[in-house]
Amino acid sequence: MPPNPPSAPSKELHVFPNPAPERDYVIQFQIPEFTCHCPLTGQPDFAHFTIDMVCDKLCVELKSLKMYMWSFRDEGAFHEKVTNDILTKIVEVTKPRYARITAKWYVRGGIYTNVVAEHRKKGWKPDAPVTLPAHSTERGLLG
Amino acid sequence: MPPNPPSAPSKELHVFPNPAPERDYVIQFQIPEFTCHCPLTGQPDFAHFTIDMVCDKLCVELKSLKMYMWSFRDEGAFHEKVTNDILTKIVEVTKPRYARITAKWYVRGGIYTNVVAEHRKKGWKPDAPVTLPAHSTERGLLG
Amino acid sequence: MPPNPPSAPSKELHVFPNPAPERDYVIQFQIPEFTCHCPLTGQPDFAHFTIDMVCDKLCVELKSLKMYMWSFRDEGAFHEKVTNDILTKIVEVTKPRYARITAKWYVRGGIYTNVVAEHRKKGWKPDAPVTLPAHSTERGLLG
Amino acid sequence: MPPNPPSAPSKELHVFPNPAPERDYVIQFQIPEFTCHCPLTGQPDFAHFTIDMVCDKLCVELKSLKMYMWSFRDEGAFHEKVTNDILTKIVEVTKPRYARITAKWYVRGGIYTNVVAEHRKKGWKPDAPVTLPAHSTERGLLG
Amino acid sequence: MPPNPPSAPSKELHVFPNPAPERDYVIQFQIPEFTCHCPLTGQPDFAHFTIDMVCDKLCVELKSLKMYMWSFRDEGAFHEKVTNDILTKIVEVTKPRYARITAKWYVRGGIYTNVVAEHRKKGWKPDAPVTLPAHSTERGLLG
Amino acid sequence: MPPNPPSAPSKELHVFPNPAPERDYVIQFQIPEFTCHCPLTGQPDFAHFTIDMVCDKLCVELKSLKMYMWSFRDEGAFHEKVTNDILTKIVEVTKPRYARITAKWYVRGGIYTNVVAEHRKKGWKPDAPVTLPAHSTERGLLG
Amino acid sequence: MPPNPPSAPSKELHVFPNPAPERDYVIQFQIPEFTCHCPLTGQPDFAHFTIDMVCDKLCVELKSLKMYMWSFRDEGAFHEKVTNDILTKIVEVTKPRYARITAKWYVRGGIYTNVVAEHRKKGWKPDAPVTLPAHSTERGLLG
Amino acid sequence: MPPNPPSAPSKELHVFPNPAPERDYVIQFQIPEFTCHCPLTGQPDFAHFTIDMVCDKLCVELKSLKMYMWSFRDEGAFHEKVTNDILTKIVEVTKPRYARITAKWYVRGGIYTNVVAEHRKKGWKPDAPVTLPAHSTERGLLG
Amino acid sequence: MPPNPPSAPSKELHVFPNPAPERDYVIQFQIPEFTCHCPLTGQPDFAHFTIDMVCDKLCVELKSLKMYMWSFRDEGAFHEKVTNDILTKIVEVTKPRYARITAKWYVRGGIYTNVVAEHRKKGWKPDAPVTLPAHSTERGLLG
Amino acid sequence: MPPNPPSAPSKELHVFPNPAPERDYVIQFQIPEFTCHCPLTGQPDFAHFTIDMVCDKLCVELKSLKMYMWSFRDEGAFHEKVTNDILTKIVEVTKPRYARITAKWYVRGGIYTNVVAEHRKKGWKPDAPVTLPAHSTERGLLG
Ligand SMILES: [Ca+2]
Ligand SMILES: [Ca+2]
Ligand SMILES: [Ca+2]
Ligand SMILES: [Ca+2]
Ligand SMILES: [Ca+2]
Ligand SMILES: [Ca+2]
Ligand SMILES: [Ca+2]
Ligand SMILES: [Ca+2]
Ligand SMILES: [Ca+2]
Ligand SMILES: [Ca+2]
Ligand SMILES: [Ca+2]
Ligand SMILES: [Ca+2]
Ligand SMILES: [Ca+2]
Ligand SMILES: [Ca+2]
Ligand SMILES: [Ca+2]
Ligand SMILES: [Ca+2]
Repeated sequence: MPPNPPSAPSKELHVFPNPAPERDYVIQFQIPEFTCHCPLTGQPDFAHFTIDMVCDKLCVELKSLKMYMWSFRDEGAFHEKVTNDILTKIVEVTKPRYARITAKWYVRGGIYTNVVAEHRKKGWKPDAPVTLPAHSTERGLLG
Repeated sequence: MPPNPPSAPSKELHVFPNPAPERDYVIQFQIPEFTCHCPLTGQPDFAHFTIDMVCDKLCVELKSLKMYMWSFRDEGAFHEKVTNDILTKIVEVTKPRYARITAKWYVRGGIYTNVVAEHRKKGWKPDAPVTLPAHSTERGLLG
Repeated sequence: MPPNPPSAPSKELHVFPNPAPERDYVIQFQIPEFTCHCPLTGQPDFAHFTIDMVCDKLCVELKSLKMYMWSFRDEGAFHEKVTNDILTKIVEVTKPRYARITAKWYVRGGIYTNVVAEHRKKGWKPDAPVTLPAHSTERGLLG
Repeated sequence: MPPNPPSAPSKELHVFPNPAPERDYVIQFQIPEFTCHCPLTGQPDFAHFTIDMVCDKLCVELKSLKMYMWSFRDEGAFHEKVTNDILTKIVEVTKPRYARITAKWYVRGGIYTNVVAEHRKKGWKPDAPVTLPAHSTERGLLG
Repeated sequence: MPPNPPSAPSKELHVFPNPAPERDYVIQFQIPEFTCHCPLTGQPDFAHFTIDMVCDKLCVELKSLKMYMWSFRDEGAFHEKVTNDILTKIVEVTKPRYARITAKWYVRGGIYTNVVAEHRKKGWKPDAPVTLPAHSTERGLLG
Repeated sequence: MPPNPPSAPSKELHVFPNPAPERDYVIQFQIPEFTCHCPLTGQPDFAHFTIDMVCDKLCVELKSLKMYMWSFRDEGAFHEKVTNDILTKIVEVTKPRYARITAKWYVRGGIYTNVVAEHRKKGWKPDAPVTLPAHSTERGLLG
Repeated sequence: MPPNPPSAPSKELHVFPNPAPERDYVIQFQIPEFTCHCPLTGQPDFAHFTIDMVCDKLCVELKSLKMYMWSFRDEGAFHEKVTNDILTKIVEVTKPRYARITAKWYVRGGIYTNVVAEHRKKGWKPDAPVTLPAHSTERGLLG
Repeated sequence: MPPNPPSAPSKELHVFPNPAPERDYVIQFQIPEFTCHCPLTGQPDFAHFTIDMVCDKLCVELKSLKMYMWSFRDEGAFHEKVTNDILTKIVEVTKPRYARITAKWYVRGGIYTNVVAEHRKKGWKPDAPVTLPAHSTERGLLG
Repeated sequence: MPPNPPSAPSKELHVFPNPAPERDYVIQFQIPEFTCHCPLTGQPDFAHFTIDMVCDKLCVELKSLKMYMWSFRDEGAFHEKVTNDILTKIVEVTKPRYARITAKWYVRGGIYTNVVAEHRKKGWKPDAPVTLPAHSTERGLLG
Repeated sequence: MPPNPPSAPSKELHVFPNPAPERDYVIQFQIPEFTCHCPLTGQPDFAHFTIDMVCDKLCVELKSLKMYMWSFRDEGAFHEKVTNDILTKIVEVTKPRYARITAKWYVRGGIYTNVVAEHRKKGWKPDAPVTLPAHSTERGLLG
């Protein structure tokens, strides 16, 4: 792969082999630069996306993810639909054990909208979570 | 629907078909601009509402939600009652799998009051939660 | 009830009928203005109280709660005891399904003390909690 | 007890009878002023300790706790060991239902170290936790 | 051990005997000063690592951990791979009951990447977590 | 004055004699509960007001200020105009040495608007400010 | 003006008469939703704009400001140039006494860029600032 | 002086000789535990006081300051008056070069009140402040 | 210029013509990813740099700045010296009206070090600053 | 100088030649790990020190500063005196153009004490400060 392939919006999402498929580890992407259009009014919408994944055989390639998110820039998309569509796409190309999309949209009409959707591979179960006996420091009254 | 129907307070809550009914995904609305009256003294009260929903066949339309919350502006309403009434209304028009209302009221007499109520559709069970082995960064002692 | 009955410290806690007894909803009071005396040295102590309740037939009336908390102003009270006593009182007058008292005391001798106590009505069980697949936004390294 | 007995570092930890032994309530102490020495280099170390307890018949007396923590000032102590030793001491004098020690140490060599240890009385089980359907307010994207 | 052995990057990780092997206590290291190279472009990458461990017979020695993390400074390493490799190394030298690595990488192409991986010793089970009935203070609406 | 005169919106602002007219001291009021209407669309607007004053012979009475701010609830008012009108009113009734109004309005159309206006009595000069050689603690890089 | 004229990107900035031209008061707009293109690579850029103004005879109309900022969505623009161009435009249509533009751009190549530019009307002088003898509360060491 | 003289509320403020009268240095006291009564309604008021001083020949003794602030606990006091009275007292007993009192009062009727007053010794001038070319770190857009 | 010239550490700093030389506007770069070596011990050091500039005829090109900062990765450099050297370099290539470098270094030996240096072009004077009568919102006592 | 000379508390403060004496640049040290004794009661005191300097011919060597601050660990010292003494010492060994010491002490008797003292070389004047027309982003009402 050349060091810097040209950048352009794209509906293709590249993948690469999971370097540690023997573990159920988590990859999280934070994408604060997302914009599309409101399909009713045509006005721009902005959101902050978070993607959490437990990959199986394939991981999402970072640069193609950036170009994929860019591809919505000139499209109209309802808050609820675009969140679910991005999840569906990621599931399609990586067939992950688990994926979760969180979208936090900028305020409209005085109301903030957040949408969260997840996918679980059939038969896959998360490891029982290890809750460590640690906690945030309480600062007493004055903090 | 015209792009910008006239805005007015309204007790009607519009709905639209859930674009991804095959998933139990979450929609959250934050409504920091809520005001009504204290039914005893007539003085204005202010609150920040949060609505969390797992929709079934129908979603709440954002603009009608804004006009619905506005409709309480000239009504008297006890903290505990108005929170429950809004939940009841949302359940009535969307018949959701799950809905939760959180209301944080401004301080009165030196006391802050928060009210939280939820509804679950009969027979509906949330997916077993996936607790990912990720955590907030601890900053050691100095943070 | 007259709009503004005279205010005075009082050991009486007024109640009113729960407007939504069909639901296990939560009422939380934050009371940052609490002071009493140290029973050993007579010096003033200060604390921030939080009260969480799932009411049954009765709710706590806000103004009487304020006057009840005020009634400790001239009393001596150990941190551990006053927290438990306030819980006992609230349980006595409202017979709630659930009540929890959190008291955060100002630093004494370089040590901050926090006390938490709870009461559950016999036979009452909280609804299985609904853990929504939403999470706080991770901000990456720089946040 | 005289109002202000003389203060000095001490390995003795005083106790007093639990005023509400009928409940499994929690007492938390925050001790931000702890210092000892590194046993290898002799250099001073600093930490912030948090102690969480569900007492049984006895509670820890606050002033003696301060003097006990002070007693480490001129001792050499490894991070992992001193945390466990303080837990062992508290267990020995109060025989609590539950105790947990959290120590957050100042950065050394660019690394922050936090240690957490807990003790549970044999046969004691915590009450099933009541997870109230309340959550932190989400602030949308801009908060 | 001499007080200050010479510092140099090293792939060796020193250990010392666990001072309290009778308990499942937690040691957490925060390492905000990590840098390596992107294997594709050769450009520097930066990350903040968090290591959580329940040790068995051996603990990680702090200074060698610092030199081990330093050893990646001139190596190329994918985000997903280096996180897993560091976990594998720690498991190899300490054979812990539990270990978890969290890596938060600086933003690249407008996207923040976080990776979390964990290891559990065969047959080891975490103690059932004790969830104390305490919670963060809610500050009402204005905080 | 009776302890609790009835509360109602009012355009009257009560005053009382300045208890320390020999000093140029500052009184600041924070009023987070302000709402009026947009005069164009009729939709509700919300703002947080801050009033800073150096009084001369008269101070603003707190309860009447609350009722005065309430009096805008059913009025239409442009952001820029209402801020200036409130300043004009306060100047009219108290003839202060100095007054400053800060209004922070909730977001509209994705834009946050803040307005600040001040009044200085003719001939009045603020004392040359005393800038003490104190500063906020810098926390180094990691805070 | 109709309540809701159609929204579209526009290079026109509407104005209205300053309702309080007798005062040098400040209007601040916060515009967190700005995006344009990098003129070299074509990739999207995002920024948060702040506009501070002391108007003279004319104020900027809020809705047209939103549409003006939107008009950059499909244009290429260097960070330094677009900030100065927006300032030039605002000066041209409102001829303000003072205007300041602050643009905070999202990170590129690991570097955050902020640009600030201001315009002062010839001959205009800001009032000597009134520095009130008030300050942020210091919280001592533990806050 | 005995190590721990008995504590009681007191109107006497003790002083001790300034250890560095050759310098204009600043001493700041933060007193978050202040309570008195509203003289009209008799209800308790709470405030956080900050005292900044440039002493001349005498400094305020810390323990007597604590007992002095305690002495207001059972007194009625208007916000504006008590702040000025405390300043007057401190000036009387220490004749400082400079003193400033900041009082932040808990919310009443939805309004927060802060009062600030200062005293300057006749003929005393603060050193011209040294404004160092240092500033808080800007974090770009995402912080 | 090709869209993506190859990246490598470099001591060359590229410039481009200032697009608005008629104004004294400010460009600020935040560079959180800086690392070099301690010249005494060879151990890695990390810092966060902030560069504030009022350019004259030339601006610093962003990508070359990144490669310039990267060029220190394998060099030994004292905190005080490297900060001054970077300032000297920037002055040399852009001959700015004003430049300021702030470097915040990670903690070493329990001490955080920050260094700030600035350059002013001979004869250049900053515009008299415009201090707008706006201020941060005070939140009263409880925030 | 050997890479790691033995560490011990010391009253000696080492210096080295200022690498950029042609500029008035600022060096700031943050020292959060300071402890001494109260000379009256013998109890430990803790503080966070900040040292700001404009050096002349000499700079303070970091490691000796750490050992100097450590040397107060077993000494009794009044808050006001120790702050002034440390300033006097630093002035004595480096003869700086400017030095400022800020000490923030842990709460005692419910009161937080902060002390700030500064020294200016005779005839030295700080450069007129450059106040850049930049400011912190205002977040509107909801942030
Ligand atoms: Ca934690
Ligand atoms: Ca997390
Ligand atoms: Ca920190
Ligand atoms: Ca959340
Ligand atoms: Ca919560
Ligand atoms: Ca943000
Ligand atoms: Ca908690
Ligand atoms: Ca300060
Ligand atoms: Ca302030
Ligand atoms: Ca702190
Ligand atoms: Ca600063
Ligand atoms: Ca950030
Ligand atoms: Ca401000
Ligand atoms: Ca507080
Ligand atoms: Ca700033
Ligand atoms: Ca808020």
